Amino acid sequence: MQRSIATVSISGTLVEKLTAIQAAGFDGVEIFENDLLYFDGSPADVRRIAADLGLKIMLFQPFRDFEGVSAERLARNLDRVKRKFDLMHELGTDRILVCSNVSPDTLRDDALIVDQLGALARAAEQAGVIAGYEALAWGRHVNSYRHAWRLVNAVNHPNLGIVLDSFHTLSIGDPVDEIAAIPGERITFVQIADAPKLAMDVLEWSRHYRCFPGQGDFDVAGFTARVVESGYQGPLSLEIFNDGFRAAPTAATAADGHRSLLFLEEQTRSKLIQQGRPARELYQPSPAPAHIGFQFLEFAVDDAARRQLADWLGKLGFRRAGRHRSKDVTLYQHGAASLVLNAEADSFASAFFQQHGLSLCASALRVDDARLAFERAAGFGYTPFSGQVGPNERVLPAVRAPDGSLNYFVDETPDEPTLFEADFLLDNSNAPTEPALLTNIDHVVLSLPADSLDTWVLFFRTAFGFDAEPSWLVPDPYGLVRSRALRSRDGSVRIALNASVDRHTAVAEALHAYRGSGLNHVAFRTGDIFAAIPQFVAAGLPILRIPRNYYDDLAARYALPDETIEALCAGNILYDRDEKGGEFFHAYTEQLDQRFFLEIVERRGGYDGYGAGNAAVRLAAQAQHRKHDFN
Amino acid sequence: MQRSIATVSISGTLVEKLTAIQAAGFDGVEIFENDLLYFDGSPADVRRIAADLGLKIMLFQPFRDFEGVSAERLARNLDRVKRKFDLMHELGTDRILVCSNVSPDTLRDDALIVDQLGALARAAEQAGVIAGYEALAWGRHVNSYRHAWRLVNAVNHPNLGIVLDSFHTLSIGDPVDEIAAIPGERITFVQIADAPKLAMDVLEWSRHYRCFPGQGDFDVAGFTARVVESGYQGPLSLEIFNDGFRAAPTAATAADGHRSLLFLEEQTRSKLIQQGRPARELYQPSPAPAHIGFQFLEFAVDDAARRQLADWLGKLGFRRAGRHRSKDVTLYQHGAASLVLNAEADSFASAFFQQHGLSLCASALRVDDARLAFERAAGFGYTPFSGQVGPNERVLPAVRAPDGSLNYFVDETPDEPTLFEADFLLDNSNAPTEPALLTNIDHVVLSLPADSLDTWVLFFRTAFGFDAEPSWLVPDPYGLVRSRALRSRDGSVRIALNASVDRHTAVAEALHAYRGSGLNHVAFRTGDIFAAIPQFVAAGLPILRIPRNYYDDLAARYALPDETIEALCAGNILYDRDEKGGEFFHAYTEQLDQRFFLEIVERRGGYDGYGAGNAAVRLAAQAQHRKHDFN
Repeated sequence: MQRSIATVSISGTLVEKLTAIQAAGFDGVEIFENDLLYFDGSPADVRRIAADLGLKIMLFQPFRDFEGVSAERLARNLDRVKRKFDLMHELGTDRILVCSNVSPDTLRDDALIVDQLGALARAAEQAGVIAGYEALAWGRHVNSYRHAWRLVNAVNHPNLGIVLDSFHTLSIGDPVDEIAAIPGERITFVQIADAPKLAMDVLEWSRHYRCFPGQGDFDVAGFTARVVESGYQGPLSLEIFNDGFRAAPTAATAADGHRSLLFLEEQTRSKLIQQGRPARELYQPSPAPAHIGFQFLEFAVDDAARRQLADWLGKLGFRRAGRHRSKDVTLYQHGAASLVLNAEADSFASAFFQQHGLSLCASALRVDDARLAFERAAGFGYTPFSGQVGPNERVLPAVRAPDGSLNYFVDETPDEPTLFEADFLLDNSNAPTEPALLTNIDHVVLSLPADSLDTWVLFFRTAFGFDAEPSWLVPDPYGLVRSRALRSRDGSVRIALNASVDRHTAVAEALHAYRGSGLNHVAFRTGDIFAAIPQFVAAGLPILRIPRNYYDDLAARYALPDETIEALCAGNILYDRDEKGGEFFHAYTEQLDQRFFLEIVERRGGYDGYGAGNAAVRLAAQAQHRKHDFN
Repeated sequence: MQRSIATVSISGTLVEKLTAIQAAGFDGVEIFENDLLYFDGSPADVRRIAADLGLKIMLFQPFRDFEGVSAERLARNLDRVKRKFDLMHELGTDRILVCSNVSPDTLRDDALIVDQLGALARAAEQAGVIAGYEALAWGRHVNSYRHAWRLVNAVNHPNLGIVLDSFHTLSIGDPVDEIAAIPGERITFVQIADAPKLAMDVLEWSRHYRCFPGQGDFDVAGFTARVVESGYQGPLSLEIFNDGFRAAPTAATAADGHRSLLFLEEQTRSKLIQQGRPARELYQPSPAPAHIGFQFLEFAVDDAARRQLADWLGKLGFRRAGRHRSKDVTLYQHGAASLVLNAEADSFASAFFQQHGLSLCASALRVDDARLAFERAAGFGYTPFSGQVGPNERVLPAVRAPDGSLNYFVDETPDEPTLFEADFLLDNSNAPTEPALLTNIDHVVLSLPADSLDTWVLFFRTAFGFDAEPSWLVPDPYGLVRSRALRSRDGSVRIALNASVDRHTAVAEALHAYRGSGLNHVAFRTGDIFAAIPQFVAAGLPILRIPRNYYDDLAARYALPDETIEALCAGNILYDRDEKGGEFFHAYTEQLDQRFFLEIVERRGGYDGYGAGNAAVRLAAQAQHRKHDFN
């Protein structure tokens, strides 16, 4: 399908917007009236600029409060709209969006509205344009597409159609099925927006919290599937009012918009196929990997950082398992967790280290077919990366994440050397004989600037096909942190994202120390945290101290035996329990530097979260600790 | 009355909070349970720290989901609450807040709830404490103080009272009159919060948008007046959940909280006196000035900035009216507008210039009694300032505004030299013979970081007794700007505040250029903008260019004659009309530097706003202009 976006969706001047929209790969654009008002040039200039960029001007919008008015007012409104028809000719577009009247004195008289929309249709015919009537979710009399369609259908004029908008329909819970029955050629235009589910006034929700498909909670694919069924041949066009997008970098937001439409098409396609319906012309990327796991995490280090990190890993029971055949890169393993410490000079990692210090410069994901997984991510517009490869070493396909770090895809072929065998001189002499205390990487947590949270959500959803959980807020002593977790379908790879707009939260301080978004902590899973923690402490690993008051409150909240409370308190282990009785035990190290630390977790009884209720306790303890150690 | 604040209202660790609360002048504090959980020390340690600071621990809170439960659950809840009673003894407080149950399985049975609250009262009696029952606005069964009081009254036990909270009552529009009929000794505690009127879920509203009295839209004084009438003798205690306060500087927020209670007491007092009721023990500041006007605005300049600003003022028809008797300070006048350019070395102004460049370092307000006006501002805790004064020069009482700039108070005594006569060598030789094009200063606009908007609102409301209008949002090409206007009661002094959380808006760029909050622009009023603008242009004043498209849209929106549209367009004059037909005409200069510019306005037919709808046009034009001139 053709892909379009309204200029209001991104930041900048009109020329900056058009340039970014073209670069992102869109076919066309909706010109939002205010962007034209602010533009110091004629509508013909805009037409020329868009044409030079190869962008089609799909629609001019909005025209407000036309219908359900007195005869005198109608005459004025027809005069108003004719001036806009003239402008549209200059602009070179034949479609205008007319949204349902929101004025308190709207006349609630369908017959009158049909008459007045008829007058609009005839004026549009005279001007050679098409008006599309849209039901705003907060329209005074008309607020559902079904009502709007009854009116448009009654007018029955080829120069008047209906405009559909996923936000206006899904925000009020309007059933989408009847969309499929509207003749496609009567649908003038289709606007697409997602949104998080929020308990607030729908107008405020619409004006500030819309987001790209895949970033919110709406079933936008279900809506779009019905649009495809109707036979509609026009573009899908993003119309996003979002306070964050208004301030975010123009080009990056436009690129996210474009990939969000590709993602929507993929989701719509599978919905249609599930329902046994045709799904021609919808984008079909390589499928998301069915199985996925952490192969390794790769840290950019220098000698000092390597010593420091290796020391802590040693205390956690990691062993030095090998060194790279051609690079200054070391492999550490414990259970199924593999960490790579990269100190190679003049490499991608060293550039990353220079910019960020000790940091996560790459993640490698184990998949069934690395080439297919890479093609999917690259198809969504993420930049491919190729590094230097020594003789006989494996070439790993990779794309850059939004912060410039790498995501490698790794697969293994039976009877061929594994990645580690191919690239590393493995040291099997000190392989462990006892069962591992840590079994695997449970999850990874990234600290992000507030305005990039949506970008990262889209990255994991599109490139890897991860599912996103709803976001939640955590109080830090110096501001609020917004947190959102994503996971692979089988839960084997989990990523949590933390973002803060406030300047002095732990997240903000981590970003400052790190000079950019990136790793906050890595959580390792254990089968027995009560056995593991004392061993780590005995080895000298500094565990973050949790206040006694927390445990006194735990005792009041849960009917836990006194000895359990005392064992938790002795180990500085935090506790959570879900509604089904699943239990979560977790402890944190102190910070290795101003931003980075480790977590040890144990999950029992199918517990599936991250101990969200304990995050504030951890943040407060860290704030206390930072004051002592880093000030 | 005693004044208190809940620890949750401000940022920081518990010790930082307590220290700031004491420094702000509060008598006591509510300990919010989470602050205790995060504190790495015993409740007895908290008791000792508070006692050392001279702070009384007024209340421990909250205890949740106690009542309307099964017998089995009640037993557990009684066990839970007894643990908290023990903790309260350690903490040294005898009051606990028990809020109404929000659980979906709450039993909606008043008789059962009375029984269970009775069990709570007896447990409290045994422990020697008092439980206060509070109706949460989103309580499952009990959400009104009137319902809560019926239950508490039915229990009729001295160890169970009611807790009132202005947010829970005013947010749901619950009538406040019945508060006066509750016996004061049965009111365990009174919590105070204001909030802006928002159309959203009351729980979200309460958790994120509460603010101090005077910063929001609620009639908190009407609520408090009924509390005073009840005979309640306990403290008024602020309980503010505000995302901004959680991240704002601890001491400054606590100071704002304390002065907001003084302001609330003043408002409550006048409400009670109006109603012929006693108002003992309520704070009584010096009254706000009945008449107030701009005496002068004082700019910190160096030689170059003075030349630049004087050049523009000359083009606007200002004349050099005098120089200061002892300082390197010049007076410019036009109509009733007086501007002072201060280049004195080693002065307050030079320090301000060094920090901020060309900037507004002081405002002088003309009042009936300067000493009284000063005493009011100083009584609300704003820092007094005294500068160097030459022989025979006037001593002006002054306080510091939140950005460190000064607010002088000036009065004139008949038959004595005026301030300008006393301090300046006036040059009457070039006094104008023609009527002035500009009549006076219409308003002043300040750019602020987003987290200081509430602080400034409280400054103008408390120190000067100004009224605040509701805030509104303006789109800048690179983010949203929140705007809020304040004015003296007669409208003769108007201040508009602009704040932005986004990094690249005009407001943010102004703050960056200015290194701190401060002047964005000054608007001068004219009686004939169509005569004035051509003269200013002829004199060489650069007027900000407004796109033609804006005027084409004006023509479509308003039935303005073509020649008016052309005159507006020729003068780059923006236009607004209010619902009563009042009209506003305004034009902007280009920016004098990266942040500062001037505005010329004409008001007709009682127009009382600021052309809010045009602000986005101006911001876009400025963004365009900054790109050309400053990049």
